[in-house]
Amino acid sequence: MIEIPAESPVLSYTHALRSRYSETDKMGYVYYGHYLSYFEVARTEMLREAGIAYSDMEKDGIMLPVIYAQASYKYPIHYDDRMNIEVMMFKKPLIKLDTYYRITTGAGSGKRVHVTGQVILCFTNASTRKPCRAPEYILNLFDRS
Amino acid sequence: MIEIPAESPVLSYTHALRSRYSETDKMGYVYYGHYLSYFEVARTEMLREAGIAYSDMEKDGIMLPVIYAQASYKYPIHYDDRMNIEVMMFKKPLIKLDTYYRITTGAGSGKRVHVTGQVILCFTNASTRKPCRAPEYILNLFDRS
Amino acid sequence: MIEIPAESPVLSYTHALRSRYSETDKMGYVYYGHYLSYFEVARTEMLREAGIAYSDMEKDGIMLPVIYAQASYKYPIHYDDRMNIEVMMFKKPLIKLDTYYRITTGAGSGKRVHVTGQVILCFTNASTRKPCRAPEYILNLFDRS
Amino acid sequence: MIEIPAESPVLSYTHALRSRYSETDKMGYVYYGHYLSYFEVARTEMLREAGIAYSDMEKDGIMLPVIYAQASYKYPIHYDDRMNIEVMMFKKPLIKLDTYYRITTGAGSGKRVHVTGQVILCFTNASTRKPCRAPEYILNLFDRS
Repeated sequence: MIEIPAESPVLSYTHALRSRYSETDKMGYVYYGHYLSYFEVARTEMLREAGIAYSDMEKDGIMLPVIYAQASYKYPIHYDDRMNIEVMMFKKPLIKLDTYYRITTGAGSGKRVHVTGQVILCFTNASTRKPCRAPEYILNLFDRS
Repeated sequence: MIEIPAESPVLSYTHALRSRYSETDKMGYVYYGHYLSYFEVARTEMLREAGIAYSDMEKDGIMLPVIYAQASYKYPIHYDDRMNIEVMMFKKPLIKLDTYYRITTGAGSGKRVHVTGQVILCFTNASTRKPCRAPEYILNLFDRS
Repeated sequence: MIEIPAESPVLSYTHALRSRYSETDKMGYVYYGHYLSYFEVARTEMLREAGIAYSDMEKDGIMLPVIYAQASYKYPIHYDDRMNIEVMMFKKPLIKLDTYYRITTGAGSGKRVHVTGQVILCFTNASTRKPCRAPEYILNLFDRS
Repeated sequence: MIEIPAESPVLSYTHALRSRYSETDKMGYVYYGHYLSYFEVARTEMLREAGIAYSDMEKDGIMLPVIYAQASYKYPIHYDDRMNIEVMMFKKPLIKLDTYYRITTGAGSGKRVHVTGQVILCFTNASTRKPCRAPEYILNLFDRS
């Protein structure tokens, strides 16, 4: 249902994570809202890998609230499953940061896609709380590649 | 970004709810993942209003996992904001239950739409964990209207 | 395990609440951490009932972080259980606010105590992030009684 | 406020973890309820390190609900702080598993204790939902030491 662009991402990162007991619900599955936290964790780690601490960006007066999110749930994640959360970006942001996600378990021929997602965030001036341009060190990530 | 069908819903319900401190994040906004719980609360209350306890449905061996969700965030919800969460259904389900949401604050000319959303759930046999038809008492809700 | 003082509370309030699906875990019980959010909701509603919005207190530059919490879990809360969350205060705060909790279901002879708890909070100056005296309108609640 | 026994623990484990954005609240601190999830994550990893998957224990028909928890909050954890979560056990369980926790940041002379805690869990037969004896492979952990 969610079309992840077919071309190679300009930036991508895969973060390994285990689901927590607190994240399961009475069906024995991870509750559908928690995947949005998983996406955020992978996003943060991708930036850290690129030398950017999201918390520093906030200290610089830039916030990054989410303006749109979608997720497609194909197979459930159970308690203590070891997931790989892949985050991908395909184009240089101006004001909006468009990010895609793929949560898998297993490897090789046993690899299975459980959840795919998309999250759009908006660079925002923390004082005025109005949209603003992406900071240089974010733009540079895309030029560098 | 999310197109809620323009026609009148077959079934709808509005649930009033206040955001909790635990649901805010360091921006002072409700974290984007929590809206998916709000949608679920409104969904449950809509069914209860129609005489159906979701927990009874699970006792009957039917689960209702989410297979797709999207949310569009226009204005943030702050701590202790009194929200109205409107849930709407436009067509009789067969195997999938398609639900739409609108979260507003205020009333009359001060009414503001903060978040819109869509959640698609799949009737599932709890023993086999395979998709199944919606039970009669769900279908009846749509015939009755 | 938690001894709630035997005398009558100076201030108390009972808030009715249903558990949410997102709050259950794979045992089918409400996850033990979520009760701390329930306590907070009852605390907020007790203050609101007394004419105080916790969010206004923050606007006045006073924060109320938790410095100690304990909970004793006797019987689990299941999904969609209708709880009564009773919050009690036994003495006028100076810098620390000492609050007790009892979560029950049912009524009359069918009433059952599921969880008891205690939460100690500390009035804190939001600018300096140092402990401070409780504001007058909080102290007045205890004089009035 | 929480007295962690002074002797050496029979079993202990330290798990490194970063706080997530979703776990902060509008004060900019990790919300007090989330530390109970952190304790659980460290507990699970301690068992895994000892060769026991908590999820396997559940497959064997043994659940481990929490019957008591307490936490003392000395210094807040902020977003993206890298925590060390130390879990300690001091005596062989019979029916109850008594666990202690210490959350620190920094190292050497810059090490700071933020939160301490205690969680008591009860081995429970998943079919009868009655307390039961700890399984042999748990008891063996304590004999081995």
